[in-house]
Amino acid sequence: MGRGTMKGGVGVKLEGIGVPTLLVDEGKVRRNISAMAEKAERCGVRFRPHFKTHQSREIGQWFREVGVRAITVSSLTMARYFADDGWDDITVAFPVNLREVDLINDLASRIHLNLLAVHPETVRSLEAGLRAPVDLLVKVDSGYHRTGVDPDDTPTLERFAEELAACRRVRFRGILTHAGHSYKARSLDRILAVHRQSLDAMARAKDVLASRYPDLEVSVGDTPTCSVADDFPGVDEIRPGAFVFYDLMQFRIGACRLEEVAMVAVCPVVARHPDRGEVVIYGGAVHLSKDAVEGPDGRPVHGWVTELDEAGWKTPTGCCSVSAVSQEHGIVRACPEHLERMRVGDLVAVVPVHCCLTANLIGAYRTLDGRVISRL
Amino acid sequence: MGRGTMKGGVGVKLEGIGVPTLLVDEGKVRRNISAMAEKAERCGVRFRPHFKTHQSREIGQWFREVGVRAITVSSLTMARYFADDGWDDITVAFPVNLREVDLINDLASRIHLNLLAVHPETVRSLEAGLRAPVDLLVKVDSGYHRTGVDPDDTPTLERFAEELAACRRVRFRGILTHAGHSYKARSLDRILAVHRQSLDAMARAKDVLASRYPDLEVSVGDTPTCSVADDFPGVDEIRPGAFVFYDLMQFRIGACRLEEVAMVAVCPVVARHPDRGEVVIYGGAVHLSKDAVEGPDGRPVHGWVTELDEAGWKTPTGCCSVSAVSQEHGIVRACPEHLERMRVGDLVAVVPVHCCLTANLIGAYRTLDGRVISRL
Repeated sequence: MGRGTMKGGVGVKLEGIGVPTLLVDEGKVRRNISAMAEKAERCGVRFRPHFKTHQSREIGQWFREVGVRAITVSSLTMARYFADDGWDDITVAFPVNLREVDLINDLASRIHLNLLAVHPETVRSLEAGLRAPVDLLVKVDSGYHRTGVDPDDTPTLERFAEELAACRRVRFRGILTHAGHSYKARSLDRILAVHRQSLDAMARAKDVLASRYPDLEVSVGDTPTCSVADDFPGVDEIRPGAFVFYDLMQFRIGACRLEEVAMVAVCPVVARHPDRGEVVIYGGAVHLSKDAVEGPDGRPVHGWVTELDEAGWKTPTGCCSVSAVSQEHGIVRACPEHLERMRVGDLVAVVPVHCCLTANLIGAYRTLDGRVISRL
Repeated sequence: MGRGTMKGGVGVKLEGIGVPTLLVDEGKVRRNISAMAEKAERCGVRFRPHFKTHQSREIGQWFREVGVRAITVSSLTMARYFADDGWDDITVAFPVNLREVDLINDLASRIHLNLLAVHPETVRSLEAGLRAPVDLLVKVDSGYHRTGVDPDDTPTLERFAEELAACRRVRFRGILTHAGHSYKARSLDRILAVHRQSLDAMARAKDVLASRYPDLEVSVGDTPTCSVADDFPGVDEIRPGAFVFYDLMQFRIGACRLEEVAMVAVCPVVARHPDRGEVVIYGGAVHLSKDAVEGPDGRPVHGWVTELDEAGWKTPTGCCSVSAVSQEHGIVRACPEHLERMRVGDLVAVVPVHCCLTANLIGAYRTLDGRVISRL
């Protein structure tokens, strides 16, 4: 597992870090992966993890090692990246974009490709453009109200059934939802309420289609409900993604413990302003993103700041946080004790608000033992 | 200028656009560059544009064509990218990061490199690590309160003067500020008030240092004040950056007209929800960023949406805006007339809130005639 130096007590290797860098604790990532894989097995559902969070072939390999064979991505570009690494059962969990029909055909000729539709009309256009078979999942809006078919819109679901019955290349595989409204939860009870309500919506949608398509699959997946729920009645597969790293948002929601957060952004301190209780780090909106959670004073917080130590980083307590970001600057509001210890030239760790966006911005990972892991 | 096809009336070339794409109107960009260059000349100040916005060698060339020879960047990585393209007078307008001393030495041996310090102690560390000469600017906090020396903190300014007098490789070039509080303005009067207050602060700081360093330069620069002000008393150079493209934020501040916005994100429509007045576009937080301006109802707006036309894109009116973004999805709240016309598979244009962040995320430009322009 490449952690020999950690076990030997040599500690985290930070040599050569001069710019904002994603530090990944491979042990924590592998534990997050194993825990979710075991839960899926225990609950009798397929584990089709969302790879949009890490977007890395090497981290994908860690999923292979616990038996994962089917994955989710959020763009055709990502699907190609992973197909080129041997993944051959990929769901693109984004409404099918017919402007990329050439890439769809390329992928469909090589792998088992699962696409998503929100509108029955799209099925006909897709069928007309395809040169190889694909499976199709109808996106159902289980309460998030981003996109998808209302589960109680029986006429639209029936039009889907009709359109799909007429297709030769598009096979009707199932219904899919993303209960993204779980991100508004701030307690286990609220997450579980979203979970139950979402599964109930999926059951209603499936009922409409069951007479013509008795074997339709039900696919759900968002990190909060998949992290918290222990029962997935009526579900065939789960597709969580952010659990691989977790982050401050997931902690706030109640989906993880801070000790499970497996990735931080390591940033150099470049200025100190003790008079106003702040330090400035090289780490801004182009590294952390502008995503925010609400701080105790109601103002946005763009990450929690903590110290690096021999084992990686200390569990943050929230006493130091990123209170503002411009393009390259981050402003850290620090408690007096930490402020005193943060000197210009030091490195600090930032637990990001939203791991998917921070990982996308910084673009490569470094393990605790100093190995670089690339991503798309 | 590569716009022959436009003049010929053939119109914007959108063929092959399948994913979120930055569309740049070269004519508008060149007009924005010329206007700022002419203003600098008229006002008797050096024009040292900030290249962090476009980060493109080709667009840098358009600046060369109006006589620009000195530039600003916000990281040493960016400095190297432009130094490798022949730029030989570069200011890194970010507190000097001593963790990158090897890159500093590499650049200092090749070009005229100007660095920034916030703390007198940093000057000594920098001097100790240097193998080639650099110029140094002291960062002054003229009211933004991100970082910099208080202009009325005479002891610190005098310590800078002493430290710099003892240096062999670090030459004291001047004082620099970024009046980023201009971004809170929402009227010309407020922008001009920030401008006057900022220049006054710089004059006070310069006074402290003038007896020992009579030739110190004064460098200022933020797009709102540089766009609006017509007089820069006591200033030697201006460093605006975002004016090259402008954006919705700059329009809201009062720094530009919407007709001057020179870059949009072109995004495919992937779903429609007429019942709630919304369409879904392929264009989310990993394309537009999560930056926002406040909408009329107090809720965040992540961009204004408009139609593409033969000349590029129509000037938006605000009747259609991006009301939410997740990783790849954007939700557009649309007026009934535009909603009716936006069909799945169409392309729409999004005027971004913050051009620097959107350009950083999408990562390459396409001109109206379909040419691709790369960036760092």
